[in-house]
Parts: sequence; structure tokens; C-alpha cells
Amino acid sequence: MDDLKSWAGENLELIRRKKPLIHNITNYVVMNYTANALLAMGAAPVMAHAQNEVADMVSLASSLVINIGTLSDSWINAMFIAGKSANHRNIPIILDPVGSGATKLRTDTARKLVRELQIAVLRGNASEVLSLADENSKTKGVDSLHSVDDAAIAASILAQELNTIVAITGEVDLITDGSKVYRIHNGHSLMGHVTGTGCTATTAVAAFCAVNDNYLLAAAFGLGYFGLAGEKAAEKYGLPGTFAIGLIDALYAISPDDLKAGIKLEV
Amino acid sequence: MDDLKSWAGENLELIRRKKPLIHNITNYVVMNYTANALLAMGAAPVMAHAQNEVADMVSLASSLVINIGTLSDSWINAMFIAGKSANHRNIPIILDPVGSGATKLRTDTARKLVRELQIAVLRGNASEVLSLADENSKTKGVDSLHSVDDAAIAASILAQELNTIVAITGEVDLITDGSKVYRIHNGHSLMGHVTGTGCTATTAVAAFCAVNDNYLLAAAFGLGYFGLAGEKAAEKYGLPGTFAIGLIDALYAISPDDLKAGIKLEV
Amino acid sequence: MDDLKSWAGENLELIRRKKPLIHNITNYVVMNYTANALLAMGAAPVMAHAQNEVADMVSLASSLVINIGTLSDSWINAMFIAGKSANHRNIPIILDPVGSGATKLRTDTARKLVRELQIAVLRGNASEVLSLADENSKTKGVDSLHSVDDAAIAASILAQELNTIVAITGEVDLITDGSKVYRIHNGHSLMGHVTGTGCTATTAVAAFCAVNDNYLLAAAFGLGYFGLAGEKAAEKYGLPGTFAIGLIDALYAISPDDLKAGIKLEV
Repeated sequence: MDDLKSWAGENLELIRRKKPLIHNITNYVVMNYTANALLAMGAAPVMAHAQNEVADMVSLASSLVINIGTLSDSWINAMFIAGKSANHRNIPIILDPVGSGATKLRTDTARKLVRELQIAVLRGNASEVLSLADENSKTKGVDSLHSVDDAAIAASILAQELNTIVAITGEVDLITDGSKVYRIHNGHSLMGHVTGTGCTATTAVAAFCAVNDNYLLAAAFGLGYFGLAGEKAAEKYGLPGTFAIGLIDALYAISPDDLKAGIKLEV
Repeated sequence: MDDLKSWAGENLELIRRKKPLIHNITNYVVMNYTANALLAMGAAPVMAHAQNEVADMVSLASSLVINIGTLSDSWINAMFIAGKSANHRNIPIILDPVGSGATKLRTDTARKLVRELQIAVLRGNASEVLSLADENSKTKGVDSLHSVDDAAIAASILAQELNTIVAITGEVDLITDGSKVYRIHNGHSLMGHVTGTGCTATTAVAAFCAVNDNYLLAAAFGLGYFGLAGEKAAEKYGLPGTFAIGLIDALYAISPDDLKAGIKLEV
Repeated sequence: MDDLKSWAGENLELIRRKKPLIHNITNYVVMNYTANALLAMGAAPVMAHAQNEVADMVSLASSLVINIGTLSDSWINAMFIAGKSANHRNIPIILDPVGSGATKLRTDTARKLVRELQIAVLRGNASEVLSLADENSKTKGVDSLHSVDDAAIAASILAQELNTIVAITGEVDLITDGSKVYRIHNGHSLMGHVTGTGCTATTAVAAFCAVNDNYLLAAAFGLGYFGLAGEKAAEKYGLPGTFAIGLIDALYAISPDDLKAGIKLEV
């Protein structure tokens, strides 16, 4: 266990040394915040969405974030172009299916993305992630999303069916490859009062996947680091406006040793 | 009068209990800020603009914000699709005609929106709102926009002609259904130095319309609440960067009792 | 030299008195931040990108910012429409070739913009700016971008070839019309940890160009003012989240006399 925590710290050090380029095709709402978060982590963010540019851009990147928070048809096309190029080059894709399950466009798009592309990590809340199961999924037999254990079973089934790492964030984060399950107990309730904290957690996963091709652990480390930043910010700020800014500060201030000491990883 | 102030507080409590979903088709500049503001109020923001998604999304919402701050043709189409769906379902539409009067695209679009859709509340500054009057409007006979009384007369005429609540914000906010006129005396001059405070005032109106179908009062309450947040933020922050963040804090921190005590509503 | 510093202060005073409208066709990531920065400077920002609106909007503006940070074909068309209208009306265009050199779309677009439009000031980092040199450019003979002197020679050649003011920002900013070279020694390293500080430096140049048609000096003054704001923010804030907000505060708080005293202009 201490080995894993040390590894998390080493990954953070690598991010800061290598400054990996993270290509984001993401929603309009969070672009500024996630760009600042990635810079604070030590990574180099770039946003590019044009169909005639994304293949070029992703070829320069160490990971690709696809976030469906504000979709339109031309952006969907760009997501597939960038995703296929990333797969071709073994660049990990981190998918954030924002709002999947809420509208047909989002659900259909997320399902198609996860089936036509090889996704390294799928990161969402429980309802978003489980909306990706199709009609024949064995997750349909799992009764309740309210129990953490049931969520773990459903997530494991889905990880196997979709052949990806599934990361469900909530009060406790759950990360699984279909056999192993890790849990992260970092975080703070104020994060739910800031727009784009889920999307930013996804970019933290992307930053760790850029330096660690064990995507199961990279996802756990990224979520632990992000949750720890929420805890540190909440020590200084108790209201959501200043807290959101303090979260960026904390991402920057957390050292590899802080992460090693503070990550609450349950194996 | 005290009854009205209590009602404002009760509405705020309802927003926090029900967490109404507010669907925003709004401009790129303010999306992050208004989403954070709505979360701080206690509401649940969603941004969606695709023509093949907006009808689905608005069906889940308790009110719809249409804001024309960064227009393009496909977004205009989506505004009409979402708006017609909202009207069909009796979901209130709050229109913010940003920059109407400045360019033909904005003026034409705003005029068409207000005529083809049933708008619950039209919220803008004096020049934006009055640009919606067509050539035959009786507002054309009102000489000056500089006098508060003239603005009230023009706003009342327009509210009758457009069959909507008209809310003109400025040093004093003026809200009318064409017969009754309410005035709100909350606010702070620093709000004019932060981008999107007008757009955010509009979302506060939308949050109150989501829990109160007396849209005249809902608009007054929303503007009073937002102005009060500006006052509270200015007590702590005297410069526009930190003030903008403090405004989000204040929206979150203001309790129903604070609103009841602090709203400066003139009937 | 003291005359130049006084002129910088007078320009800032003019911006605050005239509140020039700055039309921005810029990227999604920085729109909110640059709008708030322009408001803090004293200018009036507007964002508009529709092909059927930009000519109308630019006709109201005192300068036009074209920033290619998140391109797509319809936005590129709008940039040319707005740019031609600006040239026709002698409204200065400030071009920020974000990411030029990284992808073909960006490089081609930036090269076409700088050749088909009359650009008042081209502002970027060294690699972005020098990517605008075509195959026959004499800058190709300049060996290294690592030496400040070589960058100055390349910038001067490019300014002559493109017939524009070239402003290369970095640890020291370099501004040249092809014969005279000014250097600005203001700034702080934390600016590199905030997204959009380059884009915001560009808007500061645009604000000064709106009140001073000596674009060489306007660019130097704008960059000095923006760098000074970074210094002031760093006196109060040592982490990038709060620093970014403090930078907006500082833009607002710096007086004409502060600018006169604090600008580090090397002729």
C-alpha cells in the first residue's frame, strides 16, 4: 500500500517534470477552469475542436480528454476523428460522459464513443456511467445504485463489457478494471457546489494517464490528488466562489510528498 | 410589504430544497460564471444548445434562460426549438436580449424571440429592452431614457404590447407587468465592472420563476437577491476580480432570513 | 524616456475616460477572463463571432482582437469579414496567433490573416510569431530562438516583411516596427501558470491601440501595464488561482501615475 502511495507521488513529480500536453475536446462551461487546473497540476492544456485540426493536435498530446458536456454534431465528429487518431497512436483517451442518460443525444453519443473507440478511462457519476450499459448488459440485473456495493458490482460488470477502466466518482470514488476495485476516500462536499469539478477530476485522471500506462492506478491517483486538493482548499475557504479558486491553488501547492501522505486509497 | 419580503425568503428556501434544473442557452462568455452562480443559489444549471438536444433538455427543466450574447444561426434555431417546447410545457422562459439595439442580428433576433415565443420575463438594461419596441410601439412617443419615470412609462407600455414581464436593471431595477410597477434598490456599482452580472441577474430571475409562477414578483425577488449579494460582496472586496468571486460566495451565504431582511423592494 | 512613461500613463487615463469598445473574436477558453480584464482596464469588451454580425459590430469598435486559440472554419470566415471591415474603417487589428506552428490549420490561418489583412500589432510568443515567416523569409537564416538578440533580429525582419508591429512576449517583451526596438521588463513568472495571460496581454495592447495610433508605443505600453499588473498581483498572491484573480484586481487598481512609475521600458 505504501508502495502505491509512493507511486502516486512519483507520478505527480513526473507530470511536473514532463509537462505532458493534454488535448481537451470539452464543454464550453469548464474550458477555462480545467485549463487552469491542468496548468496548476503541472501539465500543459490545449483545447482544439475543429474536424480539420484535431488529428494534428492529438498527435502532439500525451492524453486526450473527450467530454460531452455541450455537444453538437460537428463536435461529435471531431471527437471520433481525434479518438481514432489517439487510438492509432496509443494515446490514452479519458471519456467524461457528462449528462449521459439525461438526453438521447448524450446517451447515444456516449455509448457510441465507448464502443467505437478504445477508452482508457471512463469517468463519471454513477448515473452517467451506468447509462452506458446497453439493453443486454448484465448491470441491468443490479437492483440499486444507492448501495455502494451494488455500484461496485455494476461498475465491474461494465468495465468488463466495455473493456475499459471505470471510475465512478461520488462521496467515495470507485475505480475498477472489472476485477480489481480501488476506492478513494478523498474529497469535500463543497466540490459539489462548483461547476466543472467532475470535469476537472477527469482532467486529473488524464494528467496521470499521461505519465503512467497502468490506467487503473493512474485513475485512482488522479482522483486521490484532486480530492486532496478539495480538502486543502476547504481548510482555507468555506464558500464556493473562493473555494473554487482555492482548489486551483491547492492543485499547484500539493507536493509529491503531500500526495503520498494525503491520498486515501483503499485497495 | 413585509408579506412580500417573507415571500422572497420562502422562495429562496424553495430553490434550495427543490434544486430546480435551469436550462441555459446562453453566451460563451458567461457560461461558467452563471453556472457557478446558479449552483451557489441552490439551483441546478445545465447548458445545452444543439438543435437535436434542446427539446429533450428543456423537458427536464423548471425554467429556460435564452441569452443572445454570442449568437450564431444554429444557436438561434435552437433557441426557437427550445422556446416552443418550453411554451408547450408551460416552462417559463426568461429572455436576456444582450446587445439588442447594437447590431441588426441581435435586434432582429430579440424581436423575433419576444414575438414568436411567450416570454415570462424579459430582463435587460434600458437600451436593450427598449430596442424591442417596433416602429409602431407607443414607447416611441416617450422622450427620454434618462429619466427613471420615463423608463417606467416605456417599460409599462412595452410589457403590455409584448404581453410579458419587463425587468429593466440599472441603478434602480424596475419590474412591471404593464400595470403594477415594482422597484428594487439593491445592488452595488462594482457589479458594472464584472462581465456577465446582467446575465447572472437573469439567471437569478430564472431560479425564482422556477418556484413561483407569479413572474412579476419572482423577477423582483430574483433581482433583489442578486443585488443584495452584490452589496454583501462589496463589504468584503473592493476590487472587481475578488469582488466577482465574493459575489458567488454571497449568493451561497445569503439565507432566506437575510433576503427577507435585506431586499429593498419598493411597491 | 520620462516622456514616454508619462505618455503611457496618459494613455491609461484616456482608456478610462473614453471606455473604448474592443471587439474580440477570440477563443472559448479565455473569453470570460479577457472580458473581465478589459473591464478592469477601463475598456468595454464585446465578443461577437457570427459571420452575419461581425461587420456591424466592428463598426462600433475602437479596436479588433483576432485570436485563433479555438478555431473552426466559420470563425475563420468571420475573422476575415471583421478584419476587412476594420481595415476599411482604419480600426486597428491586434492578432494573437495562438498555437501557430503547432497545427497546419493554425499556421495556415495565421499566415493568411497576416497577409490578407493589415495587422496593426502581432502579439505572440517567439515560436508562434516566427511561425508566420514563410519559406522565403530572411528570418530562416537566423539560427536560434534562444538568444534574445537573435529573436530581436528575427522580429525586426518579420515586422518589415509583414509590415506590422511585432510584439514577442516572454521573460522580456520585445516590440519592434522593423527599425526601432523597445523592450519591456515587467511581468512575473506566475503569469505562465494561468491560462490566457498571453491572450489578455493582447487585449491590453488592443486597449492602448484604441487610444494611441502610434501602435509601436501602444503595444509597448499595453505590455508594460499588463506586466506591472502581474507584479502587483504577485505581491499579494503566490499561488496561481488567487493570483489570476488578483491580476484582474491589479489591472483595475493601477493608476496612470502607478503606470508611469512602474513601467520598465527599455528603448
